[in-house]
Amino acid sequence: MMEDDFRSAAIVGLGLIGGSLARDLAERGVPVRAYDADPQHLASALREGFVADAIDASLSGVCDADVIIVAVPVDAATEVLRRIEPFAANARLITDVGSTKARIVALADELGLASRFVGSHPLAGDHRSGWDASRTGLFSNARVYICPPSNTLGGVVELAAQFWRQLGASPAVLSADDHDRQLAWTSHLPHMVSTALALALARTGVERGDLGPGGRDVTRLAGGSPDVWTAIARDNADALDVALATAERELAEIRGALRRTDAAELHQRLASARAWFDV
Amino acid sequence: MMEDDFRSAAIVGLGLIGGSLARDLAERGVPVRAYDADPQHLASALREGFVADAIDASLSGVCDADVIIVAVPVDAATEVLRRIEPFAANARLITDVGSTKARIVALADELGLASRFVGSHPLAGDHRSGWDASRTGLFSNARVYICPPSNTLGGVVELAAQFWRQLGASPAVLSADDHDRQLAWTSHLPHMVSTALALALARTGVERGDLGPGGRDVTRLAGGSPDVWTAIARDNADALDVALATAERELAEIRGALRRTDAAELHQRLASARAWFDV
Repeated sequence: MMEDDFRSAAIVGLGLIGGSLARDLAERGVPVRAYDADPQHLASALREGFVADAIDASLSGVCDADVIIVAVPVDAATEVLRRIEPFAANARLITDVGSTKARIVALADELGLASRFVGSHPLAGDHRSGWDASRTGLFSNARVYICPPSNTLGGVVELAAQFWRQLGASPAVLSADDHDRQLAWTSHLPHMVSTALALALARTGVERGDLGPGGRDVTRLAGGSPDVWTAIARDNADALDVALATAERELAEIRGALRRTDAAELHQRLASARAWFDV
Repeated sequence: MMEDDFRSAAIVGLGLIGGSLARDLAERGVPVRAYDADPQHLASALREGFVADAIDASLSGVCDADVIIVAVPVDAATEVLRRIEPFAANARLITDVGSTKARIVALADELGLASRFVGSHPLAGDHRSGWDASRTGLFSNARVYICPPSNTLGGVVELAAQFWRQLGASPAVLSADDHDRQLAWTSHLPHMVSTALALALARTGVERGDLGPGGRDVTRLAGGSPDVWTAIARDNADALDVALATAERELAEIRGALRRTDAAELHQRLASARAWFDV
């Protein structure tokens, strides 16, 4: 444990992100207590030595932790934050790791946690999920968005940035609303486009093994967790709706050019996409 | 040069595929003659020693080659095949490498080349293009579809399979029509979906650098050559139209579930996509 490390951590949820946090923190010598709704994940984490103590479903076991991390799907995260709040008096930092931020950051304000809570969103996703997908070093060089409550005090933002930097990540501060609007385009839309392509192929009897390396890349995100992504999509529905409509329109316009045998327009669209790619 | 190697090769077009063929063949000791419409590409290939002799624009220089490979975009490939045919009497094998096969294979039949021509399509694409993107080993473990003309003789199919196996590829025989129908889904649709996503992001001012690793994967194909892909899309327009319409519908249905706040349907769609992914 380095001098400026947190003395102890509590993690609620040992999925890809929570599990990887447990591994990284344990390797730094920070004692980790954790809860997971799946007793097998918790048992694995304890057996493999990354989690020192189990927290029971009351979540009262977070009470001694210097940093508390909520690492459950975004639809469950607000409920977890409500439940840990009575036990969180000793925590210098409380954060979460969800892909949408407005709702949980507003709740932190409402619960009076603004001086100790910031929302976090590490861009360290993977199509795999669960404890078995977690690994050390997941956050190395990853961008992490840090979204403070509106009533925040400066110190907690710096503390959160320090937390993520210690794990090798690159933090950037952004308002929760800006975050959600931006991520609708940069993350949630690509996920749904990849999913739609997978569904079109599935409907036609094409298997993923029939694809070349390019097609496999485009469909990789379709392997993500349905629980996690249903929650994200619902939580950011309005912004995602606009993004999806835009992608639908672009697809329809490509098809229109094709049907009109308008090679010049088709070429221009492909060239615009490549110009964007090449920036 | 191995005993069963071709004695000499002529390559028309030194892009990603043609250039990589020149490199692999030269490294096996097969003398390569080549033509490229871009004199700089040809000059680079000669200077770097992968091409022994330049062929001029008449293409008459293919006349001594044991194997002739047409490696230009599919809209130019039929014209090139017509032009080389008078000079191709000595070739044991004539093939191409385009992503659509029905048109060129039918032309080979029409030109009386059925006993020496098969269409080839190596699934070794990349978003980069041109001589500078070409490299040795590109075909290692790559699937290569081999599409014989309807009047083919068995020997030429085996010869083509041997050609590709020598470069480390894994050939599979498929009729040209089946190939084009299948590739509309497995390759051309993913390309256009990736392009549509890139255009939607470009329109919104999102840069590729703003994306996480997942979004970057989904948009990778958007970096492909507009020339190559305009030609492919036009050549396979009917099959691609059906595929694009299916993807549009899937995207619209995801958006519909989102707008109706129908979490169960959204979850079911995400779960279906993941089930397809996991097969």
